[in-house]
Amino acid sequence: MHTPQHPVFTSEYWNIPQLDHAQLPDIQHHIDTKTKPIGALGQLESIAKKLSLTQGYHSGNYQYIEINHPTIMIFAADHGIAQNGVSIASSEVTRQMVANFLAGGAAINCFCYTLDIQIKIIDAGMLQPIETPHPMLINQSIASGTADFSIKPAMTHVQAEQCLFMGQQAAVQQLQTGTNVLGFGEMGIGNTSAASALLSVLTGLPAQQTTGIGTGITSEQLNKKIHLIDLALQRVQQRYASDTLDPQSALVEVGGFEIGQIVGAMLATASAGKNILVDGFIVSIAALIATRIAPQVQQFMLFAHCSAENAHQLLLKELNATPLLDLGLRLGEGTGAALAVPLLKVAANFYTNMATFDSAQVTV
Amino acid sequence: MHTPQHPVFTSEYWNIPQLDHAQLPDIQHHIDTKTKPIGALGQLESIAKKLSLTQGYHSGNYQYIEINHPTIMIFAADHGIAQNGVSIASSEVTRQMVANFLAGGAAINCFCYTLDIQIKIIDAGMLQPIETPHPMLINQSIASGTADFSIKPAMTHVQAEQCLFMGQQAAVQQLQTGTNVLGFGEMGIGNTSAASALLSVLTGLPAQQTTGIGTGITSEQLNKKIHLIDLALQRVQQRYASDTLDPQSALVEVGGFEIGQIVGAMLATASAGKNILVDGFIVSIAALIATRIAPQVQQFMLFAHCSAENAHQLLLKELNATPLLDLGLRLGEGTGAALAVPLLKVAANFYTNMATFDSAQVTV
Repeated sequence: MHTPQHPVFTSEYWNIPQLDHAQLPDIQHHIDTKTKPIGALGQLESIAKKLSLTQGYHSGNYQYIEINHPTIMIFAADHGIAQNGVSIASSEVTRQMVANFLAGGAAINCFCYTLDIQIKIIDAGMLQPIETPHPMLINQSIASGTADFSIKPAMTHVQAEQCLFMGQQAAVQQLQTGTNVLGFGEMGIGNTSAASALLSVLTGLPAQQTTGIGTGITSEQLNKKIHLIDLALQRVQQRYASDTLDPQSALVEVGGFEIGQIVGAMLATASAGKNILVDGFIVSIAALIATRIAPQVQQFMLFAHCSAENAHQLLLKELNATPLLDLGLRLGEGTGAALAVPLLKVAANFYTNMATFDSAQVTV
Repeated sequence: MHTPQHPVFTSEYWNIPQLDHAQLPDIQHHIDTKTKPIGALGQLESIAKKLSLTQGYHSGNYQYIEINHPTIMIFAADHGIAQNGVSIASSEVTRQMVANFLAGGAAINCFCYTLDIQIKIIDAGMLQPIETPHPMLINQSIASGTADFSIKPAMTHVQAEQCLFMGQQAAVQQLQTGTNVLGFGEMGIGNTSAASALLSVLTGLPAQQTTGIGTGITSEQLNKKIHLIDLALQRVQQRYASDTLDPQSALVEVGGFEIGQIVGAMLATASAGKNILVDGFIVSIAALIATRIAPQVQQFMLFAHCSAENAHQLLLKELNATPLLDLGLRLGEGTGAALAVPLLKVAANFYTNMATFDSAQVTV
């Protein structure tokens, strides 16, 4: 069977600009006039090139970069698969941690406070919503958690479409405040299982390779996790008679509401010509789905952190991406994306303000 | 021959405190009560442990960390070896780049401005001093550059002693303003040659292994660089009848004034119970010399960046150190150290302020 894809799962819907790569030699020249040996700023130069290509496209000024109101958007949701005990915590913890974000007590709060980054928390589908309104909170829950994907599809096709629309809405709202870099994070007990299953159905890799210990489960739990993902893969294979799925079917069969909303938010960010900071394993899966829908989205992506989850390496290879940081984080919440923000700011500053050999009278 | 070491080259002179490692289980417990899976903040947890051990030793409060007025001190000097054309630039560029630092136009200026870090520039022995006083500049030049170490000792024993005293003076002066983290950087055309030669005479490794392309020389220049360092090693071996040298003799034979002053500044920082941020290859050589003089100094060191220079890997192994960042920088100036400052701030904030499972009512 094969369902025709809803327009929101097509490249045409998002109409992402094709950046002007013909500017790259000029951008490179701008960098090479700076008072430093050629290439001496390593990956900061790559960041500057990407930012310049993106910002110059709209401003027409390829010699100026600024980072405005960087924001981490954390999408939270629950997962039916978690009922099987494949995580270090139970599903209640998703909501408890969201309450912790809103109270300012979590790791991402400390990171963003220190680094002057804004935070938005999006309820994309928690078991129980947070009732009290909060300026940081956006309530756009699709449903009270996904179904257990080891036995049936995680969500309906309509829900998968809603994910993309809702994610788009949240991103557009934030971009309208002047933010030009959106970092993405997630919170959802069970979501490494969904991410591993998604990686399998999108690439054909076996569960053994795509599944890891998440935030730190036992080897017994890991075996169970692999077994459940295998069950899902068998179910999917019977239904589609194929090793790999299209993005919509992948989300429907083994996805998560937070992952789906992140896909929509990323596509909307690129569509608006703004930059995307990709965090760890789960957010990278959303990035992969987004690139499968509209490959042009990747021009706008910067990869922040290489997760300690092994499958993240495979995924980064699939995306042909080199992350900036490798600090052994295995937390999610957008913590890796937050740590990359100072690197973007530094790249923007050197690119825009650093002296040239001429201006500084340095004779190299 | 063997000269008795001057007291400033002995551990007794520096009297570096032995930190209270018995506090580590409590520090670990403090981290493990935070609302995150055990170990989920990776290297940020290691940073927090080191900072807590250091700051708690004086304050008695092991549950509170703060980063106060972080400062990058860039030591600049010239090298006789540079006369042989083993760098991408000539010795005048040392002074030109120092002028660029003072005018605010260099990479390190952009980095420190963005990241709210103070800068001090120390003339440790440039060919020509900067005459005009400047609030960022400390003039404590030992001499107008070292001698060409491929044919004779780079400096006298008295000069090597002066290096340590002068470095101590600069660090103490800065620490008295309330700074509790000092990052070190360097500027000196020819100083990767000195650093490679130092690594050889301190470890016995051949020049072939300790020598690299610095900021980007040709393979012809690289062969010449290796040849000159080999000449120095032969000269040293004839004189000392040994493969490895003590720290003072190493500085005298193949050192640099900026490297020697950094050694003194690092030892003084540890002696005052404050933390040290080690930048790339050249600053790491100073770190190795400092640990050879007083091994306790390493308790206070955080390694910022893994340089693209191959020999830096060998050196880090010798120091048993894992740097925080690997962004392909090959610039010096303390740029790697500057980029690590936000990581220290984030570590301090999470360690001090993040909620516990109890306080946030999270049930893991």
